[in-house]
Amino acid sequence: MKIVLIGAGKLAMNVGRALLGAGHDIVQVYSRTMESALRVAAVAGGAPTTDISSLSTNADVYIVALKDSVLADIIPLACRGRERKIFLHTAGSVPMDIFKGMALHYGVFYPMQTFSLEREADFSRIPFFIEGNDELTRNAATELASSLSEKVVMLSSEQRKHLHLAAVFASNFVNHCYTIASDILARQGVPFDVMLSLIDETAGKVHDMSPADAQTGPAVRYDENVMRSHGLMLRDNPLFKDIYDRMSLSIHKRSIKKK
Amino acid sequence: MKIVLIGAGKLAMNVGRALLGAGHDIVQVYSRTMESALRVAAVAGGAPTTDISSLSTNADVYIVALKDSVLADIIPLACRGRERKIFLHTAGSVPMDIFKGMALHYGVFYPMQTFSLEREADFSRIPFFIEGNDELTRNAATELASSLSEKVVMLSSEQRKHLHLAAVFASNFVNHCYTIASDILARQGVPFDVMLSLIDETAGKVHDMSPADAQTGPAVRYDENVMRSHGLMLRDNPLFKDIYDRMSLSIHKRSIKKK
Repeated sequence: MKIVLIGAGKLAMNVGRALLGAGHDIVQVYSRTMESALRVAAVAGGAPTTDISSLSTNADVYIVALKDSVLADIIPLACRGRERKIFLHTAGSVPMDIFKGMALHYGVFYPMQTFSLEREADFSRIPFFIEGNDELTRNAATELASSLSEKVVMLSSEQRKHLHLAAVFASNFVNHCYTIASDILARQGVPFDVMLSLIDETAGKVHDMSPADAQTGPAVRYDENVMRSHGLMLRDNPLFKDIYDRMSLSIHKRSIKKK
Repeated sequence: MKIVLIGAGKLAMNVGRALLGAGHDIVQVYSRTMESALRVAAVAGGAPTTDISSLSTNADVYIVALKDSVLADIIPLACRGRERKIFLHTAGSVPMDIFKGMALHYGVFYPMQTFSLEREADFSRIPFFIEGNDELTRNAATELASSLSEKVVMLSSEQRKHLHLAAVFASNFVNHCYTIASDILARQGVPFDVMLSLIDETAGKVHDMSPADAQTGPAVRYDENVMRSHGLMLRDNPLFKDIYDRMSLSIHKRSIKKK
């Protein structure tokens, strides 16, 4: 398919490279700055542009991969004059209807993953959650997603919103727990890499058992001595202490519920 | 070495099996109940017992792998009449000196990992943090740990306490984030396994970059619309909402500090 990529962040970079690899033709890459448009065009192909109002009219699908907060401003400009094309956004938490009245054929193409510029994502394992306002769009989104991934799931905007919230816990908050651990270790002069085996096993366990069954640690045992001692070590950082206390309480409550 | 294993939980089970595999001789396995003593003896060898005061005197090393809250009660009983033997405990957050006055040679043998009865741990990748009150104990702990793992680190009780706190964040709290994600998905009828690719990549990223650099999501972008919408979805669960708000604030504060 002929594709215009609107956006040049971490997600656009990885999706663009994967689409090119799957044999699609990236016609154009839009970004607010020429520098980032060029960076993505260098790996995904296509002509870089910073002029949203003069996007090519010579593509089948327009993929909008921008941060959520600018979608409402950019979408009207991207759609104007291209109303008969297919528009897809890539945001987990934004309803499909953000395109309503702007384009005739619109939907969602959400790859649930945490992307970075430095690491090349392996799309075959990344689940795509798609949606479309008509069959033409759903078929196009399915075809695109299936060309990248083995796991393509049709999901409503409402369900996807909850899925995205779950992903914030399972990825963004998990990563912040790693950051807090890294900060605690840094103060003791211990390198973060001592944690990697534990981190890998914690992720590995939930392939085999439910996370509630996999829970270990002082909070699930409700070992008050250990928790009090941990609280003392966190006294310089009230926010970390708050997170510690609420996580421990939540683990304890959840483990009682399970019994 | 000839070893008596005191305790029959997840850690004792995994350590016992690994020690047997490395050619050591498990003489005896103590537990409060015969059922769990038998379960560990079945994979680690040794005679099961529930009588702490009549432990064998025919071993080199006594490994105390009990939950932290019972250590102070059991250690005096375990040491009495065996004062000249080497005693090691396996707890991350308990000082070595819990043995002081009870035994002559004592220390710590802490494998930092999250264990379960169902999954067999691969000890070669698990870091061991060891300590000893004299050279005899340090040598024995080093020899035992090196027979299981490639990563053996001498660490003070004070440093180990902080390491254990870091591990609570990087493993126990991470797992609870998985549980919350799983609970959110269950209410939408979405199976938890859609999260596994995201979970694996989140763990994988911090092998290549610092967790602070790997952070993504609405909180680091400080996308208030998304965070407000997530807050609404959590309105039935004030504790999850609290965790969400504090994690988001902490991610945001940490990302400003980094800049």
